[in-house]
Amino acid sequence: MSQQPIVDLARRAQAVRRAQRTYGSYDGAQRSAVLWRLAQQLEERKNEILAANAQDMTLAESQDLPLPLLRRLQLDDGKLLALRRGVEQLAASPDPIGEVMRRTELDEGLVLTQVKSPLGVLLIIFESRPDAVIQIGSLALRSGNGVILKGGREASHSNRALVSCLRQALSYEGYDKNVVLGIEGRQAVKTLLELDQFIDLVIPRGSGELVRSIQSSTRIPVLGHAEGVCHLYLDAAADPAMAAHLAVDSKCDYPAACNAAETLLVHVDFLAHLPAVGQALAERGVTLRADARSLPRLEGTGAVAAAADDFGREYGDLILAVATVDSLEEAIAHIHRHGSGHTEAIVTADQLAGQRFLQQVDSASVFVNASTRFADGFRYGLGAEVGISTGRIHARGPVGVDGLLTSRWLLRGEGQGAADYGPQGRRFLHRQLV
Amino acid sequence: MSQQPIVDLARRAQAVRRAQRTYGSYDGAQRSAVLWRLAQQLEERKNEILAANAQDMTLAESQDLPLPLLRRLQLDDGKLLALRRGVEQLAASPDPIGEVMRRTELDEGLVLTQVKSPLGVLLIIFESRPDAVIQIGSLALRSGNGVILKGGREASHSNRALVSCLRQALSYEGYDKNVVLGIEGRQAVKTLLELDQFIDLVIPRGSGELVRSIQSSTRIPVLGHAEGVCHLYLDAAADPAMAAHLAVDSKCDYPAACNAAETLLVHVDFLAHLPAVGQALAERGVTLRADARSLPRLEGTGAVAAAADDFGREYGDLILAVATVDSLEEAIAHIHRHGSGHTEAIVTADQLAGQRFLQQVDSASVFVNASTRFADGFRYGLGAEVGISTGRIHARGPVGVDGLLTSRWLLRGEGQGAADYGPQGRRFLHRQLV
Repeated sequence: MSQQPIVDLARRAQAVRRAQRTYGSYDGAQRSAVLWRLAQQLEERKNEILAANAQDMTLAESQDLPLPLLRRLQLDDGKLLALRRGVEQLAASPDPIGEVMRRTELDEGLVLTQVKSPLGVLLIIFESRPDAVIQIGSLALRSGNGVILKGGREASHSNRALVSCLRQALSYEGYDKNVVLGIEGRQAVKTLLELDQFIDLVIPRGSGELVRSIQSSTRIPVLGHAEGVCHLYLDAAADPAMAAHLAVDSKCDYPAACNAAETLLVHVDFLAHLPAVGQALAERGVTLRADARSLPRLEGTGAVAAAADDFGREYGDLILAVATVDSLEEAIAHIHRHGSGHTEAIVTADQLAGQRFLQQVDSASVFVNASTRFADGFRYGLGAEVGISTGRIHARGPVGVDGLLTSRWLLRGEGQGAADYGPQGRRFLHRQLV
Repeated sequence: MSQQPIVDLARRAQAVRRAQRTYGSYDGAQRSAVLWRLAQQLEERKNEILAANAQDMTLAESQDLPLPLLRRLQLDDGKLLALRRGVEQLAASPDPIGEVMRRTELDEGLVLTQVKSPLGVLLIIFESRPDAVIQIGSLALRSGNGVILKGGREASHSNRALVSCLRQALSYEGYDKNVVLGIEGRQAVKTLLELDQFIDLVIPRGSGELVRSIQSSTRIPVLGHAEGVCHLYLDAAADPAMAAHLAVDSKCDYPAACNAAETLLVHVDFLAHLPAVGQALAERGVTLRADARSLPRLEGTGAVAAAADDFGREYGDLILAVATVDSLEEAIAHIHRHGSGHTEAIVTADQLAGQRFLQQVDSASVFVNASTRFADGFRYGLGAEVGISTGRIHARGPVGVDGLLTSRWLLRGEGQGAADYGPQGRRFLHRQLV
């Protein structure tokens, strides 16, 4: 294999870094103008985009790709309109860059300001949904970031058309179009993951397998979650009807989602009410895998005996493990042992138990009397969602545009040197202004 | 080599994770009590600590360790008192855990709160200065984190005595002393860097070589900076006296520090004033390595011709590279090409030039008319400094206690399921309360 493509990719990634530095340092109004241009592109080039998507669909159908994948792949007037509306909302929304996070008067005539800044260059790796090109691309443009987009092969025609809209919008406003770069091919990803001098954050959107394989093959920080092993705990003091409602919602609303419940923890004193909960789940087609103490309460639901490795598993399907615990502490210990730190919920009418659960569970999202399915950027009111992070640094849980920002410290002085301060010299004021 | 120590280390790291989860979930007042106990320990066990340090000093002197290293290694009454005062300040300071970052009413009876939380378990790797055990250990205790401390071999007796003070303070207040763990030996570090299930952040405090080697050998996030290649740019409109003052301060105040200037960029229109700046630097013993255009202006200062690789080098010594540029843009391009993203400063009386420098330079700290040496947690008024980060995610520039925190999302409901919302159901309010 020739080295040429690698050198070439590094040059192209470097071009994104360069273009972003200019783009990210200009006024928010200018970035808004680019977003308005993008909305215009999506409207004017609608037929071109739909034709490209039709090519992808024809190919995908001829290859017998599964139906859910075909649905994600397909674009239509409705999806394009929704994308355009999203871009227009971002265009009209305030620019986050330059927002003051902290301001301190270190001394008279020496003022320090911490401001929000673009993170730099993002690498987005996503599968079949071409919508992601515009959703993530427009978020990157709003936040002053450069972005390298690597989509799935099955959507290559659609992705190319949409990336072209992003680049054209930049060009129309006089910016270097290399702020956005579209990339194809698996080999390219491998090379890009080595370019930590040009890429600041990788956001993989896809299967847990994809996320894990990326996490273990790059020094660049990765934002995302490999697994969502969420727990719903029915406390001794849980209201039985609420317990059934939340068990059904947490498991059945969208079983393939990362915030769906995978294990139901049941306090021993709640076992008497478990049959009704089991019945409600069975009616929705859920197969229960129950431990020795809960299984007898689930007769007639089709429940089977759980194996040891059923706890801590992400089924992503209508299957739910059930474990009995003797106390709140045991429930929390089970979560810490088997969970992935994504989202856990307790159902209880006991305020103290709820409070202790909120205080002691070490997960990104911790709920009292609400479905695990609420762990989501839109439901949290964050606007567009970049992803959900189970990492602990930088961003945790559902991540909005703030996850695409960093900060810079700006100091304005009048010629002060550090040696001017000290026991024999000037003293710092450190007066907090913001 | 036996596998036993590796299994054992994993168990010990896991014990820190467990102990931290309890410690971090309790009230701030209880963490304050632990810190008061620590201050008491440092006072009561002063003689024991000094005796341990004397053992290290005797050994170090017999091995002819260099004088600066001996100075950093030595503890005395004054250093111990300063440490104790620092701990008392932290004990009296407000607890950051649980602080509300954002609160949103998603719907009536469904309130989301984002609160500050401990990051989890920190691994601190440091060299000769035993003070770091208490400085970092007490910051970890204040912020509810667990901490694994790996110090240098030359300070092993001192470190053991100080780690014992931290653990004893925890025990006295009824906590598991495993919130703090002291570790020795290089092999141990190699193993710990693989334990990403138990350790959340690595903070190496030491040479750039140490930081680089750690960054490239772990999947755990690393907070720190491998290099500080800082630039001071003398603009066309720089005041000559201020230029000389800031050049001397940025280079000479503490040449070994990461925030010392390594390259002086000079606008071609300022060259006429360069001789005075060069003279001031030469008087302080600085050797200038100058490019072709600036060298003739530095006659009599002992300046030599710069080689191409003199730009982008961290000397950590009284050596300063000098490059001539034709414009502000060229200065910024030089910084982006050769800098490490740490700290850059411009000297100028031209407000517009200052503003453009602040907007366009993509470094953690960017200054106008102030010494690069101000890039420091204490000078920034952040209180104790965890380190200076040239990374872009999580924390950038000087990092205070905020760098040791993450957040959790707490949701309190009344039994709501996600499927209750939608076109046919309830609608979200998303009312921002905080």
